[in-house]
Amino acid sequence: MAKSDLLTRWLALDALSGVGLVRKLALVEAIPWSQFWERAKRGRLPGLSEAQHRALLEPDQAAIQRTLSWLNSNPQHHIIPLTDSRYPPSLRNIADPPLLLFVAGDPDLLHRPALAMVGSRNASLAGRQLAQQWARTLTELGWTIVSGLAEGIDGAAHQGALEQGQTVSVEGCGLGSVYPARHRALAQSITQNGARVSEFWPGVGARRSHFPRRNRIVSGLSQGVIVVEAGLRSGSLITARLAAEQGREVFAVPGSVLDPNRIGCHQLIQQGAKLASDPVDIIEELLLQLSTDALNALIRPTTMDVESLPVPALLDSVDYDATPVDDVVARSQLPVDVVLEQLTEMELDGWVAAVPGGYVRLRGK
Amino acid sequence: MAKSDLLTRWLALDALSGVGLVRKLALVEAIPWSQFWERAKRGRLPGLSEAQHRALLEPDQAAIQRTLSWLNSNPQHHIIPLTDSRYPPSLRNIADPPLLLFVAGDPDLLHRPALAMVGSRNASLAGRQLAQQWARTLTELGWTIVSGLAEGIDGAAHQGALEQGQTVSVEGCGLGSVYPARHRALAQSITQNGARVSEFWPGVGARRSHFPRRNRIVSGLSQGVIVVEAGLRSGSLITARLAAEQGREVFAVPGSVLDPNRIGCHQLIQQGAKLASDPVDIIEELLLQLSTDALNALIRPTTMDVESLPVPALLDSVDYDATPVDDVVARSQLPVDVVLEQLTEMELDGWVAAVPGGYVRLRGK
Repeated sequence: MAKSDLLTRWLALDALSGVGLVRKLALVEAIPWSQFWERAKRGRLPGLSEAQHRALLEPDQAAIQRTLSWLNSNPQHHIIPLTDSRYPPSLRNIADPPLLLFVAGDPDLLHRPALAMVGSRNASLAGRQLAQQWARTLTELGWTIVSGLAEGIDGAAHQGALEQGQTVSVEGCGLGSVYPARHRALAQSITQNGARVSEFWPGVGARRSHFPRRNRIVSGLSQGVIVVEAGLRSGSLITARLAAEQGREVFAVPGSVLDPNRIGCHQLIQQGAKLASDPVDIIEELLLQLSTDALNALIRPTTMDVESLPVPALLDSVDYDATPVDDVVARSQLPVDVVLEQLTEMELDGWVAAVPGGYVRLRGK
Repeated sequence: MAKSDLLTRWLALDALSGVGLVRKLALVEAIPWSQFWERAKRGRLPGLSEAQHRALLEPDQAAIQRTLSWLNSNPQHHIIPLTDSRYPPSLRNIADPPLLLFVAGDPDLLHRPALAMVGSRNASLAGRQLAQQWARTLTELGWTIVSGLAEGIDGAAHQGALEQGQTVSVEGCGLGSVYPARHRALAQSITQNGARVSEFWPGVGARRSHFPRRNRIVSGLSQGVIVVEAGLRSGSLITARLAAEQGREVFAVPGSVLDPNRIGCHQLIQQGAKLASDPVDIIEELLLQLSTDALNALIRPTTMDVESLPVPALLDSVDYDATPVDDVVARSQLPVDVVLEQLTEMELDGWVAAVPGGYVRLRGK
C-alpha cells in the first residue's frame, strides 16, 4: 500500500466521530491491519454502526488532503501511526495512546530517555530560573526535556534544554499554529533542535479541553515528571496524577510553605511524590529503572538506533546527493513500486531522506 | 525513707563514674529498689567493682548538698527520679532515659501532648517567624511546645508558645545557669509558664558534648519533632534521627532548594520524614497516635483549667454586654481598687474581656 493511502486510512479512523479513542485502540489491537479494511468494507467492524462504517470508508477528503499537504510541505513534518516503528514505545505503553502522532522535527528524539518538566503558567522568577537551569543540566547529561510549550515553567524548561541540547514540546493545538502565539519563535527553535508533538490535526486550534489530554502525552513520553511549581488547582497536578497512573516517577520541587505556587508541590510530596532538591538526584533515581536500550542511548546518544537495523539492500543505490527514483530503479533493477516502498521504509528508518529531485542518503552502513 | 535520703541515693547512683547510663538503667530495672541498697552494702551489685560500690555508698556529700540546696531554694524546683510518678512516661519509654530529671517549673506539663520544634541557631528571619507562628497555633490547639532554648528556631518556638500557652525547654547545662546567657529572661518566663528540664546537676555548665544528649530528651518528651530549618550538619538532624529511633513522628518544613538552611529538611523528607506545610496537618497526623488520656488532656485544655477555677465573686456583676467599671463597683459594693484587681485576674483566667466602655462577660459559671 502506498504511504499516503496508509495514512489516509489512519486519518479516517482517527477522524471517526462517535467512537472513543479506547474503542478505536481496542479495534486496532484486536484486528490485524491487513484484515481491518476488508472487514470495514463488509461492514463487519464490531460495535460500529452502518453510518460509522460509511464514514470510515468515505472520510472528509478535503480535511485529509489539507493534513497531507501539511505533511508534504516540509521534510521535518511527520505523521506517525501507532503501529509505526517511529512511534515512541513509552507512549505506546500508556492506556490511551493517540492513534496518530503529528511531529514537526526529529521523531527519533522521542525514543530517547526523557524527563518532563511542568509547572505554573504564572510562575515566579525563581521557579522559571530553576526550571531553565535544571533543564540545561539534564540535557547536558543526555536527557531530553519534555514540556507543554505553555508560558512560565514550560517555556523556561524548553529554553534551558535548547541551550545545550534538545527538547520536545507537546502541544494543545495542531502543529499548523502555535499556542501561545508569543512562543512562535520558541516553537521554531524546537522544530530545528527537537520535536514538536501533537495528537491534533494541523488545522485544529487550541481549546481548553485539549490541555488535560495533552498532559497524558507529556508524561507518556517521559520516564519521570518534575513538577517545578504548582498551585492548588494547577494543571500540573493532572500531569502528575497521569504520570503516577502510567507508572512514571513523579518528582516535586519544594519551596516556602507560604508560597501559593508551591502548595501543589507540597501536596504531591505528602502523597508520595519524591522531593526533588537537585537534578542529579532525580537521574540517579531513574537510571535504575531504564532498559538497557535506553541506558545505551543515554551513553551513546545518537549512534545506536541505526546500527541495530539491518542495512537495506537498496542503500548503495542512493547517493549522498539527490538521487532521482528512476536512477535507483535503474541501479537496483527492481520494479518501481518495490523501490518506492523500500525507499519509504528506508526513510522511516533514517537511512535516506526525500528531497526535491529524489532521495539523498543520510548514513553509512 | 525520707525524701532527701531517697534523693541522695539516686544522686549517688547518677554521679557514679565508670558505669554508663544503660548499665545503671539495667541495674535499676533488674533489682528492686528495696533490695538495691542492701546489695550495694554487701558489695553484691553485679558488674560493679569494690571501688564503685564504695563510691556509691560514700558519694561526694558536698556536691549532693549543693544540689539539694538548689532543690529547696524554690518550690518550683524538682528532682524527679525515673521511678517517680511525676517522671514523664513518654521519656521513660526511650532506650536511655535520664535517671534523674531536674525541673524548674510545672512538672505536670511533661505529661501533656507535646511537639518538639527544632532548627538552626543561625536561622533565617522567615524560619524564626514560621517557628513562632506555628508554636502559637499549636499551643492554642492545646499542644505543649518542646525545644532546646538555643538561639534561632528554638528561641522563636519558645516565644511563640509563651504567647498563648506553655512551653518546655530542655537544656544542655544544669538549671543553676542559663545557656545561652541572652536567653536568661526567656528561661525565667518558661519557669513561670512552663518547665525547664535538664539531666545535668544544677551546677554543671554547658559543654559541646551535652547537646546531642540533650536532643534525645527533646524528642523523648514529644509525640513528634518538627524540624523547621536545618543545614547539612545541623544538630537538628541528630534530634530527628533520635526521634525516629524512639518511634516518634518526624516532620520537616520545606523551603527553597537553593537555601542552605533547608538542605537538612529536604534530606529528611527524602529519607521518609513527613513534609510539614501547615501545623494543622501535623496534628491530624498525631491525633491518631495519642492515648485516651493524652487525647482528653488535649480536648479540654482551656475549659478544664477554667472549670477547675473557683467562680469569681464578681462574675455576676459583669454583663454579656460592655459593663462600665463604675457599674461593677456599684453592683458589688467593693472598693474600686479591689474591683479593678479582680477584673484583671478574671480577664487572665478567661472569664471576662476588657472592651471599649468596660468589661464583657465571656462565660457562664
